[in-house]
Amino acid sequence: MTDPTARWALHPDRALPADPVTRPVARQILDATQHLPIVSMHGHVDAGLLARDEPFGDPASLLVVPDHYLVRMLVSQGVPHDALGVPRRDGRPVETDPREIWRAFAAHWHLFRGTPTRFWLEHVLVDILGVEERLSATTADAAYDTIAARLAEPGFRPLALLDRYDIEIIATTDPAWASLTDHADLAARGWGERVVPTFRPDAVLHPDRPGWAQDVALLAERAGTSIGSYREFVAALEARRWAFVEAGARATDHGHVRADTTPMDEVDAAAVFAAALRGDVDAAAAQAFSAHMLFEMARMSTQDGLVMQLHPGSLRDHDPRVLAERGPDVGYDIPVATEYVRALRPLLTAFGHHPNLRLVLFTLDEDTFSRELAPLAGVYPAVRLGAPWWFLDTPDGMRRFREAVTDTAGFANTTGFVDDTRAFLSIPARHDLSRRVDAGFLARLVVEHRLDLDEALETAVDLAYGLPRRAYARPGAADPGPAAAVPQGARS
Amino acid sequence: MTDPTARWALHPDRALPADPVTRPVARQILDATQHLPIVSMHGHVDAGLLARDEPFGDPASLLVVPDHYLVRMLVSQGVPHDALGVPRRDGRPVETDPREIWRAFAAHWHLFRGTPTRFWLEHVLVDILGVEERLSATTADAAYDTIAARLAEPGFRPLALLDRYDIEIIATTDPAWASLTDHADLAARGWGERVVPTFRPDAVLHPDRPGWAQDVALLAERAGTSIGSYREFVAALEARRWAFVEAGARATDHGHVRADTTPMDEVDAAAVFAAALRGDVDAAAAQAFSAHMLFEMARMSTQDGLVMQLHPGSLRDHDPRVLAERGPDVGYDIPVATEYVRALRPLLTAFGHHPNLRLVLFTLDEDTFSRELAPLAGVYPAVRLGAPWWFLDTPDGMRRFREAVTDTAGFANTTGFVDDTRAFLSIPARHDLSRRVDAGFLARLVVEHRLDLDEALETAVDLAYGLPRRAYARPGAADPGPAAAVPQGARS
Amino acid sequence: MTDPTARWALHPDRALPADPVTRPVARQILDATQHLPIVSMHGHVDAGLLARDEPFGDPASLLVVPDHYLVRMLVSQGVPHDALGVPRRDGRPVETDPREIWRAFAAHWHLFRGTPTRFWLEHVLVDILGVEERLSATTADAAYDTIAARLAEPGFRPLALLDRYDIEIIATTDPAWASLTDHADLAARGWGERVVPTFRPDAVLHPDRPGWAQDVALLAERAGTSIGSYREFVAALEARRWAFVEAGARATDHGHVRADTTPMDEVDAAAVFAAALRGDVDAAAAQAFSAHMLFEMARMSTQDGLVMQLHPGSLRDHDPRVLAERGPDVGYDIPVATEYVRALRPLLTAFGHHPNLRLVLFTLDEDTFSRELAPLAGVYPAVRLGAPWWFLDTPDGMRRFREAVTDTAGFANTTGFVDDTRAFLSIPARHDLSRRVDAGFLARLVVEHRLDLDEALETAVDLAYGLPRRAYARPGAADPGPAAAVPQGARS
Repeated sequence: MTDPTARWALHPDRALPADPVTRPVARQILDATQHLPIVSMHGHVDAGLLARDEPFGDPASLLVVPDHYLVRMLVSQGVPHDALGVPRRDGRPVETDPREIWRAFAAHWHLFRGTPTRFWLEHVLVDILGVEERLSATTADAAYDTIAARLAEPGFRPLALLDRYDIEIIATTDPAWASLTDHADLAARGWGERVVPTFRPDAVLHPDRPGWAQDVALLAERAGTSIGSYREFVAALEARRWAFVEAGARATDHGHVRADTTPMDEVDAAAVFAAALRGDVDAAAAQAFSAHMLFEMARMSTQDGLVMQLHPGSLRDHDPRVLAERGPDVGYDIPVATEYVRALRPLLTAFGHHPNLRLVLFTLDEDTFSRELAPLAGVYPAVRLGAPWWFLDTPDGMRRFREAVTDTAGFANTTGFVDDTRAFLSIPARHDLSRRVDAGFLARLVVEHRLDLDEALETAVDLAYGLPRRAYARPGAADPGPAAAVPQGARS
Repeated sequence: MTDPTARWALHPDRALPADPVTRPVARQILDATQHLPIVSMHGHVDAGLLARDEPFGDPASLLVVPDHYLVRMLVSQGVPHDALGVPRRDGRPVETDPREIWRAFAAHWHLFRGTPTRFWLEHVLVDILGVEERLSATTADAAYDTIAARLAEPGFRPLALLDRYDIEIIATTDPAWASLTDHADLAARGWGERVVPTFRPDAVLHPDRPGWAQDVALLAERAGTSIGSYREFVAALEARRWAFVEAGARATDHGHVRADTTPMDEVDAAAVFAAALRGDVDAAAAQAFSAHMLFEMARMSTQDGLVMQLHPGSLRDHDPRVLAERGPDVGYDIPVATEYVRALRPLLTAFGHHPNLRLVLFTLDEDTFSRELAPLAGVYPAVRLGAPWWFLDTPDGMRRFREAVTDTAGFANTTGFVDDTRAFLSIPARHDLSRRVDAGFLARLVVEHRLDLDEALETAVDLAYGLPRRAYARPGAADPGPAAAVPQGARS
Repeated sequence: MTDPTARWALHPDRALPADPVTRPVARQILDATQHLPIVSMHGHVDAGLLARDEPFGDPASLLVVPDHYLVRMLVSQGVPHDALGVPRRDGRPVETDPREIWRAFAAHWHLFRGTPTRFWLEHVLVDILGVEERLSATTADAAYDTIAARLAEPGFRPLALLDRYDIEIIATTDPAWASLTDHADLAARGWGERVVPTFRPDAVLHPDRPGWAQDVALLAERAGTSIGSYREFVAALEARRWAFVEAGARATDHGHVRADTTPMDEVDAAAVFAAALRGDVDAAAAQAFSAHMLFEMARMSTQDGLVMQLHPGSLRDHDPRVLAERGPDVGYDIPVATEYVRALRPLLTAFGHHPNLRLVLFTLDEDTFSRELAPLAGVYPAVRLGAPWWFLDTPDGMRRFREAVTDTAGFANTTGFVDDTRAFLSIPARHDLSRRVDAGFLARLVVEHRLDLDEALETAVDLAYGLPRRAYARPGAADPGPAAAVPQGARS
């Protein structure tokens, strides 16, 4: 039996297949990718955090309070939001002592057994933060102190971590009306190639959203124009997209409930827009308008070359009482069945073979892997499959993704690994896990004589590094190509 | 090649992973659970069978005729219901010689290759009934005689088997109007803690069901009241629930086609109820009323503490001609795609954080494992995931369940193993199989260094014993807690 | 690392499980099936190709241009249809030099890594055509020359390949109005038992299809009658079905978008038919008529004994611009979610227990494997599950099929392997792969002690040979039975 008091350590073969024939091959494949730089093109790290480059806060406010994977699990087992320091909208008090919050988390470490949160956090706590004993109520305080001391070191400031982690490029996510001043600031200091914005216009594309009119006003202000009509709205969006391009953006990002892309006549779209400005839009019209705007976003991508990322299928804020009390993004976004084939047909008929469009599809509904996503990506030149996302960004989820989509889409029609994290410290853990899972999958192909080892090694490097670089290169831009994308030393 | 004439035996490592690294770990984990008591909280054994405590009948009427898994497979390959002794509603003759029925089954033993029925029956025939030769047309008679002799032994009476099988507690399933006299009888003889009823009101919650009015009249009679209005209906249900609580019930059980829980205004519900009493309700109104009553059941659970079990998604009696000829429960219930996220939203918004509600969700639609069920269970404190059920209660089905839900729900948001069987003799086989599959799953996590062995051992004991005990403890009741739940000797 | 310049060879253990305990058992099971004859009951090889028995053309027009798996993958990565020689409907020029087309394909060989196309083609190129170096831009010309030389040999004519491949029987796919002269010609030369037609009436069952009226006219002409009414339409279909029966047909084949089988009153059906003849039918009426005709096809099968094959769920020609430019079957058929349980209820209620009906169900939607298809096949005597089809006809797809359906349907309710290929040369590769995957699945059951080895060996032979023979024997016909179906030598 494992000695629970032994020094906490990460096993070098973790998440690799167990069988004694496959594991050494997986190990060999992992060796080819483990030290590649990180390409992080779909992150939710705040640009201001990087621009300010201040030390991270305490362990709880860094690792517990903002991590909705972690909060939701504790809540599901009866730990109140208040005890975890999740702020209330009404300003009533919640736990503010970070050490108490940390203790509440540490005492429930066992709940994370078998989850990816456990895998990522173990990596962060042991490998990055130097915690030496397995987390528990007993060891909580010692871990807290170790982490707090580490976070105070200069080498742990955000920009220093970009180097420490070998993050070649990181994309942030920014609303259409973002000023991008943090990005300008970073660019002025030489970080412009490594920290780029992403254009996320969701807030202004759903005209029945509370606050929509205010967000449209912000958009107008930022675009230096007024928006009184649909045409002006479209023009302002186009202007902001170009501003993002100027600031180095590679992509847009779209989180609709449905993947519908049915375009409207301009007259109809203008009428819905005008009604919405008057505050008089019903759900059906709003939904039709959102679908139309997805089509428009694809059209604009064919002009400005921004890669279009679409991740439908999350029903946000399932419990409206929790939304009212705590706000969004606290773990109550639940996936729903998602249809892609008919929904994307208008967009793909119009632009699916356009040389300037790249459409990256994500899903929360793994039932679509083999039925819809792989067949679409396996024929339309514009389509790439993003990495399995959110609840599927797990050892078994990533394995099932490769098993289900490779048959029909191959490897080249996927983007390789794309993390999707708000948790800055866990970025290397997520890339590490993905490289392990892909190594295991490729190793199985090799030992089943479905792939030669040299092909597996080349493919592994591509999945970890080459493919994400190429997927997020704007289609017009010079493409380093697969050979150039592989750093020296990666091929042995 | 296996010698088919060798003495029939169960291999100690059956259903454990084959690879030589994982199997010994799985074996070690299984050793920690194999001798734990059985907690059987969702059974369909008749309370009268236990109260009467008479010897079981012949092999065919015990093992063949009532087992719809078994009957359906034989029918699918052309064996007529008549030859299997499945009674006809019109009273026309069917095979009545149990030996002939047994021979028809034994001659088709090969059809069950690869099915869980094969696994369970092999356990029952070899380990419990002492059959010594693999079943076939040739060995049918000898097996029949062996079983018949065994069933005549005093140690094979129903209550004796509760001890022999180490069944700590078994729940029966009883209609809302059940008299519970068998339970009272058992309680008077000291079995009240071990045999408990379950409140299943399906028959009176679907007002367009043939026979609904009669069942409502039975409900009124049993509640000692009259039911002329919706309010009286609700009051009678509440009264019966409390009577079940008094009789030791832990839970309610609900088998709707859809998971819809949208509540109605009381005025509207009363109108549908009144119309139904007049025999004048359409399918849409009836369905809305059923959904409303699910919501009401949750509300009542917050008051009386009964655990609420919901298993939607079975289209009952797919072939209406078979229903007319043979009645329900002969193998023609077929699963349909089931939506949980929007359907449960009303119930969960109202009661998903209520300290007195525990909602156990089952499914026949594995496509919802990672997409809907794990995310819901992984955030709402009231929700637990039941074991994979019915067609999914299989070695590979249970493995896929753990692989798909653990990422997001962990282990603690599941109930551990819950059997669902009408076949009394197979209860130990089903628990044994579940413990084997969970041992294999946990062993993989250990050998992939995603879990430490001590954690896997503790989790295995929890899945087999601690979790079902806690899941079906009424929320108000004293909870033994995980430590107390583990018998001495289970931890090595 | 694999030496890419080594002589290209197929590993004898390819596609068998890697773990060192399971592989030798899989190998032993494969030995029992590897040399069984091929039963190919759902092919799309042109009967004329066999009747003419001319040498195959050049490598590109044989292996590249008509293979939509292959074309779609190249297109998805930016190779234009023109460069692959896919003809344009407007007659504008496309690449016609087969060597150039071959080079375009060979240079992109890496795209097929991990796909079944890679597996099949490797088998064809190495084992059948004798290519000696792994395909690439560098080796393209040498491979081309090797293949071209081989195709010119007399032993490579189509009928010779039937012997070389040990194809016991091959079914073609033929429209309702087919003259069947090629089949008559082949029969006259003694091939009537080995090459049989399949009745595929899709074109005349969808009255809103462009060209429907012309196809109905062709049907009338071939039936030697006129079709002015629904009754005459039904009579002509019945006549043609009998003509197919006379020509040796075993089965019909139906590719509808939905599985709906709701029958119409004859008066309503006649009205829709009459409206359609006038060119005045809407989509809803047409769809209802198609569903009705599926019901009718089942009824006719109970009379003439043709096995009914249904494969719903493909949305044909997703991109209408590609359809307009290149025609159908160039890779733009995309699966959609498919409902079977309610859709098939009318047909199964009417004929699901009829002794003369056999309904073989295929799917492109693997989410229905355990939820819908296995439960239906596991109870209705008329239903069998076809092999995983099209995008699921892959090593992992076939494994998931067995893992998901065997629990509830067993093996005997499946048809065993049924290939579905237009690529004549790849028929042995497809059967070989299927036998490997089934050997691996059965070996796992053996090493997990869920099946005895003698049972696994018998089952493997059945899946490869006995089951497809029996599944496609017309129900009235004499059935060789499983024992006779196993050739000498297959049992060791």
